[in-house]
Amino acid sequence: MERVYNFSAGPSALPVEVLEKAASELVNYGDAGMSVMEMSHRSDAFKVILADAKALYKELMGVPDNYEILFLQGGGSMQFAMVAMNLMNKNHKSDYILTGNWAKKAYAEAARYGDAKAIASSADKTFTYIPKVTPEMMRKDADYVYICANNTIYGTRFKPDGLPQTGNIPLIADMSSNILSEVYDVSKFGLIFAGAQKNMGPAGVCAVIIRKDLIGNAMDITPTMLNYKTHADNDSCFNTPPCYSIYICKLVYEWVKKQGGVPAMEAINKEKAAKLYDYLDNSKMFHGTVVPEDRSLMNVPFVTGNKDLDAQFVKESKAAGLENLKGHRTVGGMRASIYNAMPMAGVEALIDFMKKFEMENK
Amino acid sequence: MERVYNFSAGPSALPVEVLEKAASELVNYGDAGMSVMEMSHRSDAFKVILADAKALYKELMGVPDNYEILFLQGGGSMQFAMVAMNLMNKNHKSDYILTGNWAKKAYAEAARYGDAKAIASSADKTFTYIPKVTPEMMRKDADYVYICANNTIYGTRFKPDGLPQTGNIPLIADMSSNILSEVYDVSKFGLIFAGAQKNMGPAGVCAVIIRKDLIGNAMDITPTMLNYKTHADNDSCFNTPPCYSIYICKLVYEWVKKQGGVPAMEAINKEKAAKLYDYLDNSKMFHGTVVPEDRSLMNVPFVTGNKDLDAQFVKESKAAGLENLKGHRTVGGMRASIYNAMPMAGVEALIDFMKKFEMENK
Repeated sequence: MERVYNFSAGPSALPVEVLEKAASELVNYGDAGMSVMEMSHRSDAFKVILADAKALYKELMGVPDNYEILFLQGGGSMQFAMVAMNLMNKNHKSDYILTGNWAKKAYAEAARYGDAKAIASSADKTFTYIPKVTPEMMRKDADYVYICANNTIYGTRFKPDGLPQTGNIPLIADMSSNILSEVYDVSKFGLIFAGAQKNMGPAGVCAVIIRKDLIGNAMDITPTMLNYKTHADNDSCFNTPPCYSIYICKLVYEWVKKQGGVPAMEAINKEKAAKLYDYLDNSKMFHGTVVPEDRSLMNVPFVTGNKDLDAQFVKESKAAGLENLKGHRTVGGMRASIYNAMPMAGVEALIDFMKKFEMENK
Repeated sequence: MERVYNFSAGPSALPVEVLEKAASELVNYGDAGMSVMEMSHRSDAFKVILADAKALYKELMGVPDNYEILFLQGGGSMQFAMVAMNLMNKNHKSDYILTGNWAKKAYAEAARYGDAKAIASSADKTFTYIPKVTPEMMRKDADYVYICANNTIYGTRFKPDGLPQTGNIPLIADMSSNILSEVYDVSKFGLIFAGAQKNMGPAGVCAVIIRKDLIGNAMDITPTMLNYKTHADNDSCFNTPPCYSIYICKLVYEWVKKQGGVPAMEAINKEKAAKLYDYLDNSKMFHGTVVPEDRSLMNVPFVTGNKDLDAQFVKESKAAGLENLKGHRTVGGMRASIYNAMPMAGVEALIDFMKKFEMENK
């Protein structure tokens, strides 16, 4: 069967070149005489893969030297606890900006470990916008301010020039669904984490960029495996890391670099997103659900306003080789996730299909 | 390059048939039009993979219906905390049997969360035997008794008929390095966990078999992601599971089933181990380090008694295509890990090489 255009929100499409390379060396990697899956994580061969992955990620993200890069397990959901247990141990306060389900879950987890406060929310309009946050809204003694940089379900994002101005308070960001998609200045953050399975690799590895001075202050109750210091002290090899997932991330990093790095991805992503939003803005049948200024470049939710028509669209689009356009189970409607690996041709195929559907069902 | 014989203790050799099948469907799985790495964990295609993996594991291990099977992240090291936080919340006491580094680490982690007690240890003889444990040594009000069923580093094991008799106290076992290698009666355990990367799949997934009545009693401080109930209530899909690693486990389970299941693996493993131990027992140069009655079927440590000769052996064996025979960094000497995926031919090649080395260096 032909490969489809996969608009899944996560796990998501990977560059076909990456998959082909992985397939070609799955049984026997280079001159190792074995698969990457079979390599001891303490072997020279795997150490090179890990070091390369780290160096490439550092380069692509422009990570300053006073930050550590960690490859951890448990996904973003584990980070919800790790962030709180490791960073909310000075004044035991943290400020959360609620822009969707994932921010809410992170907030709920933090509230179990200290005085977490929701300082802003866009729940009043079903998270269809990013709330304006001014410095006065933040507590001066908060241990950190937390955002979900891109909201996979609702299709909003904090733009690189629209981040909360937190001053000396570390800004923590969940970038699981927009990592490597446009240029963010890492030095503005205390910590950035990203589950790999949307824009960076397979599920099962979460890349954490953490400012070094934030490491080493975990609560006493923190499990050893949830202490950033454990992993920083052991270069992500305290125990066996998810080796094969890290290897696939490395291939994705190489692919991003070959495309021209994050600035080039940003240009392509803006073009892809503009094309789709432009169509939505002009369609008589479909419309986007997010205010224009806060639209995500990665996740584009849209509706017809008619549930039956939505269902028909999802069904027919699937038959046409456009997969996973159904909206999140908590929202309904449709959603096109157009991550880095989605080619322009995929976006064009979607728009063509929508036009045809609109004609046939008007 | 030819594939080598890989004696790595973990991550470890996988059956070449599994790797070849994975490679053949890496870019495009069946009629899905995408890689397993790209599938939404909530898609029908992935749900089938997960259900198959679970059903096969249940069948192979003979898991009774009053147990739940979970596929989690974080490896065995994360289980050290999870076991304590979830199960040591009744009388806040647990009894540990110290048979090596991994049992010690599990014990140290548990001691952070309650009254963990080392009720027996073989540290006096560098963990070269399994201590005899009688019911009187256990505390009657312990929430559980913990063992590491097979000790990867030291090469000892609790035999299926030599388990501690814990009566009504749940017995918890780390089976990371001997899962699926010989028949254990699951009903004798409260919980069995196994990091996949030795005998079951790639690093990044840990299979947990837990008796259902032990779920739902976690300490209040337990992070949501470390609560077994979180994962049991959501069939391992509370958040995105390590999908691709689970898929590889499924392929390994299919392979084990094709070999005749765990009883057949046990017969082969006993034959492989007997051949190697028999050679060691008769060698004038090499000798095993473990008392015969407690020898592991999976990990066979041995030494010459001469560090230079050990180093020479490791170097020359590598050149001969026998990889990763160096002993654990904390022990020295050599270690051959002969997991399910190591064919008899690999063990024979090792013995032939040892004979040759012994001849050349006597």
